[in-house]
Amino acid sequence: MSEPMDYASAGVDIDLEGAAVASLIGALSKSVRQPGTPGAPVDLPGGFGGLIEFGDNLLALATDGVGSKLQIATSLEQWGGVGIDCMAMNVNDLLCVGAEPIAFVDYVAVPKPDPAIHAALGASLAEACRLARVTLAGGETASLPGIVTELDLSGTALGWLPKGQAITGERLVAGDVLIGLPAASVHSNGYSLVRKIMEHVGLSYTDEAPFDTHHDGRALMRWTEGNATLGEVFLTPTRIYCDPVVDLLDAARGDEPFGIDDVHGICHITGGGLSNLLRLHPSLGWDIHTPLPVLPEFTWLQSVGGVETREMYRTFNMGMGMVIAVDARQADAVLRWLKARMPRAAAVGHVNDDGHRVVHASEGVEFSHY
Amino acid sequence: MSEPMDYASAGVDIDLEGAAVASLIGALSKSVRQPGTPGAPVDLPGGFGGLIEFGDNLLALATDGVGSKLQIATSLEQWGGVGIDCMAMNVNDLLCVGAEPIAFVDYVAVPKPDPAIHAALGASLAEACRLARVTLAGGETASLPGIVTELDLSGTALGWLPKGQAITGERLVAGDVLIGLPAASVHSNGYSLVRKIMEHVGLSYTDEAPFDTHHDGRALMRWTEGNATLGEVFLTPTRIYCDPVVDLLDAARGDEPFGIDDVHGICHITGGGLSNLLRLHPSLGWDIHTPLPVLPEFTWLQSVGGVETREMYRTFNMGMGMVIAVDARQADAVLRWLKARMPRAAAVGHVNDDGHRVVHASEGVEFSHY
Repeated sequence: MSEPMDYASAGVDIDLEGAAVASLIGALSKSVRQPGTPGAPVDLPGGFGGLIEFGDNLLALATDGVGSKLQIATSLEQWGGVGIDCMAMNVNDLLCVGAEPIAFVDYVAVPKPDPAIHAALGASLAEACRLARVTLAGGETASLPGIVTELDLSGTALGWLPKGQAITGERLVAGDVLIGLPAASVHSNGYSLVRKIMEHVGLSYTDEAPFDTHHDGRALMRWTEGNATLGEVFLTPTRIYCDPVVDLLDAARGDEPFGIDDVHGICHITGGGLSNLLRLHPSLGWDIHTPLPVLPEFTWLQSVGGVETREMYRTFNMGMGMVIAVDARQADAVLRWLKARMPRAAAVGHVNDDGHRVVHASEGVEFSHY
Repeated sequence: MSEPMDYASAGVDIDLEGAAVASLIGALSKSVRQPGTPGAPVDLPGGFGGLIEFGDNLLALATDGVGSKLQIATSLEQWGGVGIDCMAMNVNDLLCVGAEPIAFVDYVAVPKPDPAIHAALGASLAEACRLARVTLAGGETASLPGIVTELDLSGTALGWLPKGQAITGERLVAGDVLIGLPAASVHSNGYSLVRKIMEHVGLSYTDEAPFDTHHDGRALMRWTEGNATLGEVFLTPTRIYCDPVVDLLDAARGDEPFGIDDVHGICHITGGGLSNLLRLHPSLGWDIHTPLPVLPEFTWLQSVGGVETREMYRTFNMGMGMVIAVDARQADAVLRWLKARMPRAAAVGHVNDDGHRVVHASEGVEFSHY
């Protein structure tokens, strides 16, 4: 192809989105809730989850949707995983502030109600609640024929943590060890580009994947016999990291040799890929010198789409869905603890003080703004 | 016109929605959160807000969207009220369980980001936070060109209450006095029918309203000079009842002559109109013998749309946005307290034990299922 594909040419203008969000946030005034009262806002850099005061605790809310991955699910009439995607996008954000997710509500918008879709979503959300260990505390199904042409699914997760134990990034220092947690697949970001590449190569989601889909540490959700299809690969549900991260935080608050103060930052690798790391601290840098293995679907997407490596890492998780920055003195203990629950977790790099940017073992992969 | 208009013919099939929701709920298993731990579910009839345990308190979540009212806002490029609608639909549900709303998150889906829309939404949500006295704890803006053709807006509200003080409806008894709180206008339900009637009469939302739009106790949101347009009437934001209901609950928990045990039930008159009352109790009945005045837009909609009276009361709030059922012995004190803050609040009827149905002063207006 003549031009390399990128996320913007796939119809997503990250800068325009930024301007739109900034104008929304700019219009918001200060909360009427005073410090010390339930609901008073707690300032936190990074902004993965919104924190509020609640007595001796903090509560955290996160809201997000599944996005254009839904279009693949709808085209294949396979909604069995999207409830898990929806849950994951929210609870994984809560984990980043050190919160334990406890409840979830879903919002479903459809052109008209369809019991088949809703039964599949219900089963998927039930499985998601089990994986994230949360209560489904409600939901809304809206019929909006003039607004949506097919299923939209979003949700909101509620979490909590003891006051004073938020993971804010303020303890981050050069030398902190970065532990990467493996992703299940593409998760729920970058699907505009996935869909554009699929269109470009002229393959169908029902076609067999033209690469080896096997990869230790993940199980595809299968609905065909034989070799896995592209649809099965690309509808692999987003990994929910409550297990092991909630347990890690509990252990750190308990009697492990490492403490909650040794967990300096947690980053969900979501839209924006590795550049998300920049949200955790205003000046420190991030060096991913020993990355986790790249999953085969990313290699294939890059190759057939002619996507530049930097663009891949700005769009996709590339095999690492979450990064935990840990005090260097306790990094071995934390990694050992994590590997007992998630064997493919690994030390992938370090925090440095070489400027506010992310660098990566792959040449040209460098980010200086989110 | 030959056939009277109704909500189903306007494209909304309430029974189909019920089946879809039932199949979603049916697929959900029990929560993994055990009683006594944060996040454990609390069963509550009515289901306006989902309650979970949190130490000595209960937390409540409500999630809902603005629905097809958004289509009128988008057609007029007037989004200044829809943030208030979105807030109101959620916090008013929380009030029904006796919860105080403390935080809110919004979910915005658009075909592509538009700073003008987002700035208007931001201003509207800021005003909504002020009216509902909550912190905006986050939000998500999704660009979904393949899924939405125009703005969709929904949100989730979080509230809390002391354990043991939920308003469950279990104290309701025959003889309880029903206090009605006035609505601002159509609020955020029934807009499929509004839009169908508008299409039928061939008027534009920029046309002057062909009825007297003045009504004590409400102020229209105006953006034209001269007489109010139909668009200005139909985009009147939903009333947020935190003031006075949160204060009423606080007063009842404090040193007023009436107590929290005297507030037997609170009902948000939302989609389903008066039939919502049936959600509060499995067997008692509801007699609205002295209704609040019907707002002029409802009278006009009924007349030009040829809508049956019963259908009007099953679709719209008809001028009463919330109902509070109060112990008869304290009804005067509660009503006096409310009228000092909301002068058009009034006693509108009684709870009875004549079967599980709603009856109303208007002939033929009777509901035996929600």
